[in-house]
Amino acid sequence: AASRLRLSGLCFLLQIFTIILFAIFVRYSPERGPSLCSQQLNCSWRNQDSGFQHPRFRDVHLQVLLGFGLLVVFLSRYGPGSVAISILIVAFAIQWAVLIQGFLHFFLNGKIYVGAQSMVSADFCTAAILISTGAVLGRVNPVQMLLLTLLGVTLFTLNEYILLSLMGVSDSGGSLTVHTFGAYFGLMVSRILHQPDTEKMKEPQDTRHQPDFFAAVGTIYLWIFWPSFTSATTVHDNAEPWAVLNTYFSLVASTLATFVLSPVLYEESTLQMVQIQDATLAGVAMMGMAGEMLVTPFGALIAGFLAGLIPPLGFRFLTPVLCSRLKTQDTCGVHNVHGLPGILGALLGTLLTALATADAYGGRLELVFPLVAQGSRTVTDQALCQLYALPITLLLATLGGSFTGAVLKMKGLRSPPEMRYLENTVLWEVAEEGCDRGASRKERGT
Amino acid sequence: AASRLRLSGLCFLLQIFTIILFAIFVRYSPERGPSLCSQQLNCSWRNQDSGFQHPRFRDVHLQVLLGFGLLVVFLSRYGPGSVAISILIVAFAIQWAVLIQGFLHFFLNGKIYVGAQSMVSADFCTAAILISTGAVLGRVNPVQMLLLTLLGVTLFTLNEYILLSLMGVSDSGGSLTVHTFGAYFGLMVSRILHQPDTEKMKEPQDTRHQPDFFAAVGTIYLWIFWPSFTSATTVHDNAEPWAVLNTYFSLVASTLATFVLSPVLYEESTLQMVQIQDATLAGVAMMGMAGEMLVTPFGALIAGFLAGLIPPLGFRFLTPVLCSRLKTQDTCGVHNVHGLPGILGALLGTLLTALATADAYGGRLELVFPLVAQGSRTVTDQALCQLYALPITLLLATLGGSFTGAVLKMKGLRSPPEMRYLENTVLWEVAEEGCDRGASRKERGT
Amino acid sequence: AASRLRLSGLCFLLQIFTIILFAIFVRYSPERGPSLCSQQLNCSWRNQDSGFQHPRFRDVHLQVLLGFGLLVVFLSRYGPGSVAISILIVAFAIQWAVLIQGFLHFFLNGKIYVGAQSMVSADFCTAAILISTGAVLGRVNPVQMLLLTLLGVTLFTLNEYILLSLMGVSDSGGSLTVHTFGAYFGLMVSRILHQPDTEKMKEPQDTRHQPDFFAAVGTIYLWIFWPSFTSATTVHDNAEPWAVLNTYFSLVASTLATFVLSPVLYEESTLQMVQIQDATLAGVAMMGMAGEMLVTPFGALIAGFLAGLIPPLGFRFLTPVLCSRLKTQDTCGVHNVHGLPGILGALLGTLLTALATADAYGGRLELVFPLVAQGSRTVTDQALCQLYALPITLLLATLGGSFTGAVLKMKGLRSPPEMRYLENTVLWEVAEEGCDRGASRKERGT
Repeated sequence: AASRLRLSGLCFLLQIFTIILFAIFVRYSPERGPSLCSQQLNCSWRNQDSGFQHPRFRDVHLQVLLGFGLLVVFLSRYGPGSVAISILIVAFAIQWAVLIQGFLHFFLNGKIYVGAQSMVSADFCTAAILISTGAVLGRVNPVQMLLLTLLGVTLFTLNEYILLSLMGVSDSGGSLTVHTFGAYFGLMVSRILHQPDTEKMKEPQDTRHQPDFFAAVGTIYLWIFWPSFTSATTVHDNAEPWAVLNTYFSLVASTLATFVLSPVLYEESTLQMVQIQDATLAGVAMMGMAGEMLVTPFGALIAGFLAGLIPPLGFRFLTPVLCSRLKTQDTCGVHNVHGLPGILGALLGTLLTALATADAYGGRLELVFPLVAQGSRTVTDQALCQLYALPITLLLATLGGSFTGAVLKMKGLRSPPEMRYLENTVLWEVAEEGCDRGASRKERGT
Repeated sequence: AASRLRLSGLCFLLQIFTIILFAIFVRYSPERGPSLCSQQLNCSWRNQDSGFQHPRFRDVHLQVLLGFGLLVVFLSRYGPGSVAISILIVAFAIQWAVLIQGFLHFFLNGKIYVGAQSMVSADFCTAAILISTGAVLGRVNPVQMLLLTLLGVTLFTLNEYILLSLMGVSDSGGSLTVHTFGAYFGLMVSRILHQPDTEKMKEPQDTRHQPDFFAAVGTIYLWIFWPSFTSATTVHDNAEPWAVLNTYFSLVASTLATFVLSPVLYEESTLQMVQIQDATLAGVAMMGMAGEMLVTPFGALIAGFLAGLIPPLGFRFLTPVLCSRLKTQDTCGVHNVHGLPGILGALLGTLLTALATADAYGGRLELVFPLVAQGSRTVTDQALCQLYALPITLLLATLGGSFTGAVLKMKGLRSPPEMRYLENTVLWEVAEEGCDRGASRKERGT
Repeated sequence: AASRLRLSGLCFLLQIFTIILFAIFVRYSPERGPSLCSQQLNCSWRNQDSGFQHPRFRDVHLQVLLGFGLLVVFLSRYGPGSVAISILIVAFAIQWAVLIQGFLHFFLNGKIYVGAQSMVSADFCTAAILISTGAVLGRVNPVQMLLLTLLGVTLFTLNEYILLSLMGVSDSGGSLTVHTFGAYFGLMVSRILHQPDTEKMKEPQDTRHQPDFFAAVGTIYLWIFWPSFTSATTVHDNAEPWAVLNTYFSLVASTLATFVLSPVLYEESTLQMVQIQDATLAGVAMMGMAGEMLVTPFGALIAGFLAGLIPPLGFRFLTPVLCSRLKTQDTCGVHNVHGLPGILGALLGTLLTALATADAYGGRLELVFPLVAQGSRTVTDQALCQLYALPITLLLATLGGSFTGAVLKMKGLRSPPEMRYLENTVLWEVAEEGCDRGASRKERGT
């Protein structure tokens, strides 16, 4: 009971704190009418695509809708027992990300001007946080989760700001910023929270009845929504189709790769839907950076096929090593599904950047590599920037993860080991009654 | 068997009747080509946004798609046992709403000219009817449901016509027309159908296995689709983003509110997904009218937080009183989830109307309050209109609910008490066999 | 084990083969910039709607997303046990369809230029293949499924090319090309694979727990996404609304028809969600060709009502005859749900074509029947073309199905009867553990 009231109090404090910050700093972007949008105000739609405003804005609005669909995938991925806590994380992360990203990207005259674009950026951030929680799920309590979100959002935004704004890296789908950062941040938190004696405690049996059903629904969501997520931040319409099509081709090839490799690795017949979902996630993580750079469909097929090989190999050979040697538990396998494919995607993007020529890209050059098109950078410089972004992301993720883990390990926060299983199940009781909740609640309430 | 044939006959009669009315009255709106759309014909897209036709139309078309997604939430909300009957209600309500709304809104020269806009309006109406059925679910048979739909659609359209067309009330997301009307109409029907002796009969045990799964899927749908539903009828693109963003901010705050209040009210640990779904629904009901009027994000956060407090408090304190003192059963708690938040949303909208200034709204004034912008009304007059709309809606809902309840109570319609449980389960048998239905049906058919 | 390695090897060969073909032939369509898109290159968006490029392209892109949602319906329709194999089919069919359709439709100077339009066409093709597999599900192994896909995609594209390109038939929603071809191709394969002695073997018990849940989710997807699928290939925006609205009206009427007929046919009370889903599918199959030709809403209501009568009647009277007399098993009833409604839809489309007048269609004539509007054909000629397309489709489907069935019957491919049940369940084991897969896989892997 005490831990539930502590969670209640923390939620209340965070919400009040956020409301106060919103009241002081956050305003809506002014109207698009030509009379109102002066130069001082951050009318993002004007700056981005002058003279082509309305359709572009509607697109972003659509992406917001679809972006939420993506978050949903993570929820379904981690099972019904964790849906409630995931929604809490989403609800808080979006507010916090709007604030922190606003301070870095949309701050002007002491105010943050938000719009649909802020919502899309907050979506990306929330996706990274959900990836991180996948590594520690089942071993932290909700209060720790909220603190992880608080720190994770801040560090994600810092990394994103360094990469995209300061270094001019092109990473529209988040191979580095979302997948790599999210995975290694979560893994580092998991490593710090490792407790040798209690980890041997038997994991509680999963009481879910249809894991494959959730995996199937999640896979389908990914196929429908992720290609548009990948292209959510490509700033002009012209660049969109290639990112979408490359992601589709990567998806189909990574799915086939799982069917190729799984029977070879596992002699018993155990192709499960989650394996197909892993392949799908790896396929899209691979296309995060390279999606808008690939100029031929067969390149996407090859990259997707290679990405689809990573999760089966990783679960078979890497996860045991990670767990026993490096003492890093990885509840949902985010290292195989997001971490490694994200790194490979970043390397592929770097390679493609180095090979980019004005001939092959044509008018797209200024969309994908605006600094190169403007002549302020050579293609080689841009490729080096893309390359340097990888160690920077890894450094920030591991340092930030260590710090966050140390904070979460503080005495007051950590639940005693014998409490943790209790908390996880008891906090999110599965309802037994359906619609007629009034009566049954009354009985239990008295 | 007799009751099933009666349902079959009623469906047949209603469908034939609708087809005849459609054949006499309903035609498609003529082409958009400039040569065809003369002034006499109701080319709605021309009147609404002159000179900006194509993109607007496509938006409406999209809203139709998404609107159906919303209906789906109600279906999933009320459990698999009620999905079949809900789809029947949707299928009939859409046809009937196109007709009745057509007579009031799109009638010209003896014909109703329908288009995508008619479909969106019919969606709104169907949503209100599904809310109403939530109050009486499990205590009426399908024939009664169809009659409730028949009368409810008519009364909804009448109320909508009085509010939007005659009084010029601004209620784009339906705080009053959808949520408040739907909830109190359904509650009044439930009150009239109350039978003291039989209500004590033990409710049949709910045999669903994953209520939380349905609640999770429903919550996710709401997050994705409702913000666009709220903004479906905002007539110009410029006003859209605020309604969408306000609804998102309201959603995240109401979710956190549930996490704050639930542990305080219920000492045992029982945070269920349905509670989060309740908070989500209350958050969007709150933003129905005020969504496009709020000019600051923190206002939406505060309003959403307050809305999220209503369902837990209502289920804890109000529902028992409603049930024991007022003899009104509320199967799915629509009073807490739609009724009260809808009323509060209307009051908030009234307050914001009274505070509206041309400075704060700028070019948006003519979109949100066209009569004020045209100078034919002061802001105070508009606020009074918004205020009067609340008692009018409540009056129409309760009077209409009483009349509908009296009709449903007629002797021939009511199932005997001992039959009702039987009917509800037996009519919608859960299939045991899966895909190979031909063979098993054959066996049973002979 | 051997059969699993055989599947793995076949997937590998097919993927390598596809990558090589893509590397040789497939390129992205060049940029839309006016400077780049010369006349030699197949800039599809330019040809289709000159001067109105951007919005149109975004629409197609949206259809791609939604189209995948449709495929999903088939997956959910055929149950969780078959989802993995369905995703394999989808992943391979899309690649193969892009290639084969590219050779016929987008081939220029030795290269295939793909874009979002190619993806939409590949979706249509994949939908037809999934319909075909519905007829043989549970009686073929995954290797046979892949070969069926290989041959089916090729034959589908051939039929589509003959109908749409050579004969100028108007079939935007695929009544003939998708539904009729898919159903009869699958049925013919099923007929050829019929084995008298083993079919009597008891079918394995379906161990699914919530068939109705899948049916409910599938029905909802159909309602949301199919109307836009029907209108995906109508080339101009102006024609879109009618196809969408007609499909909606057809959907609601076919749903009511099931409620009318089911209690009469089945005396016990067994209205199941799958029956409502059957009605929904029949309603959209009916509108495939006629959707954009119907000029009055009540026509769509009548056609939908008639379509909704077909599946109950078919399952009751036709399926037993098909099974016992014609020795054709039809696992998922595709004949009642896709085959017959598709044929009726084609006949309705032919009738509407014969009755089409320039007065009723106005500016739409050149969209629906471009050859008639250009004066190169009379309406009667067009109607005859539409009529001839039906026997041609049936001929190609049955001949192609016989050939495919003969190939699948070859000795090396067929599993021995006692193996088949084993293979189907064992290949796609339902996972028992949920998220923490690393540990359990490790245990099993060693």
